[in-house]
Amino acid sequence: MAHDLYGRGLTEEVIGSFAGTPDARLKEILESLTRHLHDFITEIHPSIEEWELGIDFLTRTGQTSTAVRQEFILLSDVLGVSMLVETLNGSETPEATASTVLGPFHLVESPVRRSGDEISPQSAGEACVVEIRVRSVDGSVVGGATVDVWQADADGFYDVQVPESQSVGNGRGLFETDREGRLWFTTIVPAHYPIPTDGPVGELLGATHRHPYRPAHIHVLVSAPGFETLTTHVFVAGSSYIDSDAVFAVKRDLIEEFAVVDDPALAEAFGVRSPFRHAVFDVVVEPAEGVAHA
Amino acid sequence: MAHDLYGRGLTEEVIGSFAGTPDARLKEILESLTRHLHDFITEIHPSIEEWELGIDFLTRTGQTSTAVRQEFILLSDVLGVSMLVETLNGSETPEATASTVLGPFHLVESPVRRSGDEISPQSAGEACVVEIRVRSVDGSVVGGATVDVWQADADGFYDVQVPESQSVGNGRGLFETDREGRLWFTTIVPAHYPIPTDGPVGELLGATHRHPYRPAHIHVLVSAPGFETLTTHVFVAGSSYIDSDAVFAVKRDLIEEFAVVDDPALAEAFGVRSPFRHAVFDVVVEPAEGVAHA
Repeated sequence: MAHDLYGRGLTEEVIGSFAGTPDARLKEILESLTRHLHDFITEIHPSIEEWELGIDFLTRTGQTSTAVRQEFILLSDVLGVSMLVETLNGSETPEATASTVLGPFHLVESPVRRSGDEISPQSAGEACVVEIRVRSVDGSVVGGATVDVWQADADGFYDVQVPESQSVGNGRGLFETDREGRLWFTTIVPAHYPIPTDGPVGELLGATHRHPYRPAHIHVLVSAPGFETLTTHVFVAGSSYIDSDAVFAVKRDLIEEFAVVDDPALAEAFGVRSPFRHAVFDVVVEPAEGVAHA
Repeated sequence: MAHDLYGRGLTEEVIGSFAGTPDARLKEILESLTRHLHDFITEIHPSIEEWELGIDFLTRTGQTSTAVRQEFILLSDVLGVSMLVETLNGSETPEATASTVLGPFHLVESPVRRSGDEISPQSAGEACVVEIRVRSVDGSVVGGATVDVWQADADGFYDVQVPESQSVGNGRGLFETDREGRLWFTTIVPAHYPIPTDGPVGELLGATHRHPYRPAHIHVLVSAPGFETLTTHVFVAGSSYIDSDAVFAVKRDLIEEFAVVDDPALAEAFGVRSPFRHAVFDVVVEPAEGVAHA
């Protein structure tokens, strides 16, 4: 392949260098990357010193990552890229529940629990009852769905972050919906919490006067045979930072009231003290591609 | 700052998050980055698995970098970004010699040498005489200019890569131009060589069927009081890969003939064997901004 070095511009020369890529998808991605990256560089016209700062920032972002910390995902998160990718891959069916980011704390298996169980027995906080109801976009209930939930405690920590005070599995549960598509559990109301700020991403947030907080939420991952798997959160209405999530994961239909209920009889039925907080999260899943539903 | 989560798109929300950045230049860069990055992601519509592969590639690129190896600069190089940044920062004066990338081997101080010295005494290869002549864009000669040169040997290795057979400084020289703006030195003709391929950038080149080679060249860095510093190469005309440099650093006016000269008398004058190769590189520098030249 003889490049014409002089007639074409640099960007076309770089794109041309990928002409022999055997994988058509990789070729498409690299051509698009080259064009957008060169457009960005041309637009900002960095000095050599600015380019060196950028190289150093990206290098340290890689070097800050370990087996238990992924600083490049965090960078993707705070630039809205993770949420953009999740949204592009989410359902295009308006009736289905919106997806959001998986986040970095789905690292361990949730313990199998039964409807009515307490998922945060090692955590102190406001007692809370959460009901989840799974149905299909056509309104029919989805029984036998697997629902994985995980959450931070009232101080904003996940079990794996505080091994000195919590066993792995505290704040987590793997449930199955009943024939009416339902399950419920007791827990404590999770708190808002900061993403890690002791690495390059923390420097970026500091330099841009952005706060590192995520509003309070419970992660929900729903899978059922014949349906698209849904990765989402239920956010606590009124939580601090609900309108400025550091990773841009809030969508309006994922915010639910965690209502204060002062009803001793109902509290006794759920096995909690009164008053307690009560949330109901309706999850709507859509049939997997190529699966016909009656 | 109250974000409107629902009325605006995600990209605008991310850009809005940088509104409080005190440094106007950082704010400008991050806004442009967000827009171009989101445009790229939206265009390629990556699957979650493709996004994970990208995160892993960037993470390993950072982790491959050490005190003596910079894999992110190498990635910048093979995507043409380093050359684009260099070109954007280069002279806008068409008469001035074009700049090109500094490269990763300007890590040690070149030994001070005098015109006529041999710069590669520990290297075998084709004897070569290089003359460099420095003048200003107005045609006047530039005496007293500092000219730093460094080059690979006939196997494609720089001194620092083969410490078992070369002292640091072999293939390097720090010269000063005489009153006519000239200097000359003897050396051997450098060879083309591959960039490192044992890291993530090597994987990228392999997957895209790109070769890793740079055509033969000598680095030249010229500085003189009152003139813009010029970082450039002189490329050996006819070198392998002259039309497909892995880092896109070749510009036409930087390619020079290294002519074969079979002239025993001239060889003796230069202190080399006949036949030898002979190159003349005219360097044109421009006055520094704000400096008046008569």
